[in-house]
Amino acid sequence: MITVLTGGTGGAKFVWGLAQIVPPEQLTVVVNTGDDLNWWGLHVSPDLDSVLYALAGKLSRDRGWGYEADSFRCLDRMRSLGADGWFQLGDLDLATHLRRTQLLASGKTLTEATAELCRAMGVKNRLLPMSDDPVQTVVSTPEGDLSFQEYFVRERWKPSVTSVRFEGSDQASTAPGVLQSIIHADLVLIAPSNPVTSIGPILAIPGVRDGLRCSTAQVIAVSPIVGGAAVTGPAGDMLKMRGFAVSAAGVAECYRDLIDVLIVDSQDEGSRPQIEAAEAHAAFTNTMMKSDDDRIALAKFALATVAREATR
Amino acid sequence: MITVLTGGTGGAKFVWGLAQIVPPEQLTVVVNTGDDLNWWGLHVSPDLDSVLYALAGKLSRDRGWGYEADSFRCLDRMRSLGADGWFQLGDLDLATHLRRTQLLASGKTLTEATAELCRAMGVKNRLLPMSDDPVQTVVSTPEGDLSFQEYFVRERWKPSVTSVRFEGSDQASTAPGVLQSIIHADLVLIAPSNPVTSIGPILAIPGVRDGLRCSTAQVIAVSPIVGGAAVTGPAGDMLKMRGFAVSAAGVAECYRDLIDVLIVDSQDEGSRPQIEAAEAHAAFTNTMMKSDDDRIALAKFALATVAREATR
Repeated sequence: MITVLTGGTGGAKFVWGLAQIVPPEQLTVVVNTGDDLNWWGLHVSPDLDSVLYALAGKLSRDRGWGYEADSFRCLDRMRSLGADGWFQLGDLDLATHLRRTQLLASGKTLTEATAELCRAMGVKNRLLPMSDDPVQTVVSTPEGDLSFQEYFVRERWKPSVTSVRFEGSDQASTAPGVLQSIIHADLVLIAPSNPVTSIGPILAIPGVRDGLRCSTAQVIAVSPIVGGAAVTGPAGDMLKMRGFAVSAAGVAECYRDLIDVLIVDSQDEGSRPQIEAAEAHAAFTNTMMKSDDDRIALAKFALATVAREATR
Repeated sequence: MITVLTGGTGGAKFVWGLAQIVPPEQLTVVVNTGDDLNWWGLHVSPDLDSVLYALAGKLSRDRGWGYEADSFRCLDRMRSLGADGWFQLGDLDLATHLRRTQLLASGKTLTEATAELCRAMGVKNRLLPMSDDPVQTVVSTPEGDLSFQEYFVRERWKPSVTSVRFEGSDQASTAPGVLQSIIHADLVLIAPSNPVTSIGPILAIPGVRDGLRCSTAQVIAVSPIVGGAAVTGPAGDMLKMRGFAVSAAGVAECYRDLIDVLIVDSQDEGSRPQIEAAEAHAAFTNTMMKSDDDRIALAKFALATVAREATR
């Protein structure tokens, strides 16, 4: 049994690769919901949707987010009607949010609504939001607080970040199945997601850190930092803001006490000593997921790492 | 100053014709909202939208309802996600309902939300919902109660109708401006809409019937019944259910005590005596609005009727 903690689009690609080599009933995916937003009155879960679409084979390859071959006719009209348009929902994508909002309004939890969307889209993996309770990632900047999507999409992660907090996480419970899937897994993988804003909210829910520590599973993370910079997005800025080096070693520090192994891109082989100083083993391979083959190869490497570690 | 009471798609065509010959600041349109529905969590106002789209030049000519050149990609996905799909919202149309729902959620009234949609779409006429309060047209059939859209769209007006009621109308107030626009008008026109389910809900709001009676305006209705049958929709069945003849005379009876003149299609010239027995004058012209020219001609005829009646 494998459980992946993930968020963001890199995480979705990684999960897709895993799904190609692991039977669906053996793969549980726990997803960050700190980026969720109310947009046009709809409950939008960007990270859940990226994984949902990736697993259904519908994630747009051109954009890396949203639904394949989508159009933006409704969005164009919303803008002309005076609504905000900086967060882009396609016409096909919209259905996911309308349906989720409808299911939530009917009294279902986010976990139940997600299961229903999975069923309807033929996704057989267990896809779990980290929590059914509202948790909001708030990014503080010198100009004030921003929701994560305001910071990331509207402001294109240009503002300098003074702190990040996960509002509501103290009072939140993990969604049903999340802790069990971590504690009873044979392998827990942390996707190459932003350690602060994608994995951080999951780790902030009471019980998750303890679950990772108590689990007999190997815990293996993939570094989203390659060659001293994030592959995409603001992971570098976020690590720096939290006082970590912008390097694989910084990622290892950030996950100190939680992971057994950090998978790092081959170009960072020199970082082994610092990673081991952070009490994780280092395993090196190509982590740049440019093609489907890259994704599958990285997933295979992650599984092979478990076997290697077991015989260590 | 001209005020039109309207509902349905025939009414929208009629209003479009009027708007071609009357300056926008002189034309107020009061619209049935008894057909409004919560669809996919959105506040949909089919009759307001038909008039809004007609006045903005965006009403689909092919379909007679909805937005011109619309697509149904979101609807197709909603169906595949297990949502109901019998009420069809196009991708462009969706924006209207999303925006309206958003404006209502922000605390605006339906009147204010409608004004905002008009502004954004360049519609300069005053477009008023009959009420800001919820009023629901309920159609009783031998198999049970249906909302108007369930009866009309889902069941294609096949069930036999035992009664129609307008739930909430007793407690509803007319929207701001509605009564004034009726009482202070020089002319009140009742569009060729279903007298029972399109105009009936407007007349059921306390004050509207008295307003029509007290107004010094001429009140002129256009019969939606031509040659013993409704031009479109269930107006015939509805008149019969209420005990009226399915004829221009039946329409005159239905509006007895409210109208001065009934405009009737030329093929029904024989109905003059019965219409006059219902205490309305009859005026005959082509009322079939097949082309834009027909619509404009009917509007001109309605205005000319006022002048003729004034010198009577």
